Amino acid sequence: MKITKVDDLLRDALSQRRQKLAGLIDFPVILWSGRSIPRNYPALTFPFRASSHFLYFAGLPLENAAIRLEAGKLELFLDDAPASSTLWHGEMPKRAEIAELIGADAAFPMTELKARSTNAATIALQDSVTQLQQREILDRPLAPSKAPTGIDLELTQAVISLRLSHDAASLVELHQAAAVTVQAHKAGMAATRNARIEAGVRAAMESAIVSENMTCAYPSIVTVQGEVLHSEHYHNPLQTGDLLLADVGAETSMGWAADVTRTWPVSGKFSPTQRAIYDLVLAARDACINKINPGVEYQDIHLLAARIIAAGLVDLGILRGHVEDLVEMDAHALFFVHGIGHLIGLDVHDMEDLGDLAGYAAPRTRSSRFGLGFLRLNRVLSPGMLVSIEPGFYQVPAILNNPETRLKYKDFVNWHELEKFADVRGIRIEDDILVSERGREVLTGKLPAKAQEIEELVAVSA
Amino acid sequence: MKITKVDDLLRDALSQRRQKLAGLIDFPVILWSGRSIPRNYPALTFPFRASSHFLYFAGLPLENAAIRLEAGKLELFLDDAPASSTLWHGEMPKRAEIAELIGADAAFPMTELKARSTNAATIALQDSVTQLQQREILDRPLAPSKAPTGIDLELTQAVISLRLSHDAASLVELHQAAAVTVQAHKAGMAATRNARIEAGVRAAMESAIVSENMTCAYPSIVTVQGEVLHSEHYHNPLQTGDLLLADVGAETSMGWAADVTRTWPVSGKFSPTQRAIYDLVLAARDACINKINPGVEYQDIHLLAARIIAAGLVDLGILRGHVEDLVEMDAHALFFVHGIGHLIGLDVHDMEDLGDLAGYAAPRTRSSRFGLGFLRLNRVLSPGMLVSIEPGFYQVPAILNNPETRLKYKDFVNWHELEKFADVRGIRIEDDILVSERGREVLTGKLPAKAQEIEELVAVSA
Repeated sequence: MKITKVDDLLRDALSQRRQKLAGLIDFPVILWSGRSIPRNYPALTFPFRASSHFLYFAGLPLENAAIRLEAGKLELFLDDAPASSTLWHGEMPKRAEIAELIGADAAFPMTELKARSTNAATIALQDSVTQLQQREILDRPLAPSKAPTGIDLELTQAVISLRLSHDAASLVELHQAAAVTVQAHKAGMAATRNARIEAGVRAAMESAIVSENMTCAYPSIVTVQGEVLHSEHYHNPLQTGDLLLADVGAETSMGWAADVTRTWPVSGKFSPTQRAIYDLVLAARDACINKINPGVEYQDIHLLAARIIAAGLVDLGILRGHVEDLVEMDAHALFFVHGIGHLIGLDVHDMEDLGDLAGYAAPRTRSSRFGLGFLRLNRVLSPGMLVSIEPGFYQVPAILNNPETRLKYKDFVNWHELEKFADVRGIRIEDDILVSERGREVLTGKLPAKAQEIEELVAVSA
Repeated sequence: MKITKVDDLLRDALSQRRQKLAGLIDFPVILWSGRSIPRNYPALTFPFRASSHFLYFAGLPLENAAIRLEAGKLELFLDDAPASSTLWHGEMPKRAEIAELIGADAAFPMTELKARSTNAATIALQDSVTQLQQREILDRPLAPSKAPTGIDLELTQAVISLRLSHDAASLVELHQAAAVTVQAHKAGMAATRNARIEAGVRAAMESAIVSENMTCAYPSIVTVQGEVLHSEHYHNPLQTGDLLLADVGAETSMGWAADVTRTWPVSGKFSPTQRAIYDLVLAARDACINKINPGVEYQDIHLLAARIIAAGLVDLGILRGHVEDLVEMDAHALFFVHGIGHLIGLDVHDMEDLGDLAGYAAPRTRSSRFGLGFLRLNRVLSPGMLVSIEPGFYQVPAILNNPETRLKYKDFVNWHELEKFADVRGIRIEDDILVSERGREVLTGKLPAKAQEIEELVAVSA
């Protein structure tokens, strides 16, 4: 376990989360933390990551643990480490100490869990070995976390309603993750001119995160091939004329995430075509952030970005037609190929283990439209929600060179004009915005986004 | 997949490995690569790590793939990525291209594997989902990789005999991992004086690895609590008077590891007590390295380290008695609490997924002696083996404060004298040494180990 300090703010929050849960459901709940997963062999594992639902109610990333929640009470199930493990892992706090730290009402060894599992609901973990344990303890089948049934579905809906709105303790962590992520992006910009390959910039960015004793919330994207949305290659050389797209975010030791993207010119200077598209994406980003307010439909923010991008591409001569028509026929989505954003919390796409149950307000489901189907969030915004805003422009060969696409949009895309923008492979600008009572707070607002400011940060070599 | 280039050296090596395997067994073999394992939700996974046995014969870290080996022939089983994945992961090479890269004789979609699985041996993966797939395809039970039976045991023994001796293609990778690891340790030393907490040094070290487009071969240990052997905490402040123990190693994109430890004073200057123990550990390291030769029993190197450490502790007044007697009664192991080293290759503890089958020459098994039971390698050294040499001195409270221990060794430990060495919590010096025909080659030999050189590297602030 990484952290053995729990401050009053968190302990109070844990208590309030339990009370709120008790107000929504009237059956017991057992949440498992999960285990370290072998990488090469049993003693060489991936870094342990506790289940986010467990973290939300237990506060600490305890391995091989479970908690039982009922009527606002918390029971901890955890085996004390054997004496022999001291040599390898040092002195570990005992079950009783940990129970006190997190405000548990009682604590038991794991063997006691079975006897206290009657009629308990749970959420299936991603790890199949832990899932097996969940089934054995509960003595019943267990549906995947994205399609729960019965009391598990009721529990899932209750947890979603809590985790959708961040409390004061969560916000402390989310602010810290955002602040360190801002530093990581500045470090990446400053390191670019002396870096030989993408990996050099990645190293500088992740180093800024690791040095604050945080980890990466997701695999970093640091690429000159911005059109590959989830590129995990870092071997490409950095060349004058390239744009570098960096989507890198920190995760605090308690598990809370940030998710930020900036795109900058390797040379420190955008070309005129790069600058034109950059400013368009930035205009969409600014407008979308300003639209965030309680009561606003998140899908409307997506459609706002679509209209701004379509209008801008008309102005640049890349698209032809009326903006509303172009958006209606998903012409914007030839270039803005994904949704405007998603929830952020203990997961970078928060609660995506629950499929669309968190992202989509019931009974909404994904659209079959090319320009809407990728949207991960379709809810009315309310205070305490943290969302990303991440408009982008990409030239994806598989989309733009598709003969059917070219035929369908032949009257609406000026392919000849588009060729002039060949040095714009992918641009994304992504920030993390908290919906507040009064409107919004940009948690990543200290990271510049204006083209000129970006150029200045790149010019300052590390 | 990360790498799509296979040079002639590797392609020839893959062919030779297949031929050698065919010389040892006369039944077909299927090796699975494994899959990406979910971290928070299905789309957010841990970094993919292919099975080392697969990597050894297939060369590339292909996800969800299998290879079939028979009589020196290689068949690749891999599904082409669906067209829709291009948006997220870019253009992927097709099965046929990959098959050509690695010199496969034929290539099939995964659905063909079942029909070609008759009487095939395999090695169970660590991932339970892939294990299930292995059982389904082979249509039989599958024992854990550390306890294979029948043809799986024969295969395992054949693979061990190959992987014990590194060929030219492996050595290129192992040299690269060692060279980058040397740079990482130098970067860590240079970063120490400006670092506030352990994480600051960790960041500098891992950054040196990531910037070369490599990853960490194992969770980094960077700690002022050197007595905690596998500490994964990085939050402790760095204070004058502390020793910092850093056990950090790179892994190449093809999967080959390095494993290096250095211990240095945070202030840049060892105290007299720290220096005395450091020089003792260094003397053991130098003597053990010099003893490495083909034909030497690795356990004898461990016992050499034990004698040197025991003798040195007698000289320092910490132990009392005759060296041979002290080693016989495991008095050295009160402080040198682990084995002198292990195999290194595609795994940092190479082939530890096979339990002791690789580390211990049959029919040898682990000793029940406290001072020998932790030894991971007990074989006669032969050319091509890569081993670590890692003597150490630790003051583990759970060992030294154990009343039984204190009683047993009351006449042999001068506890009062030991108290003077309270500022020496843990020291380890670890290098990677290749057994060669002529003797040995220290792959990490460019990293200084002498106390004064270490002090000079720490003094050079980053």
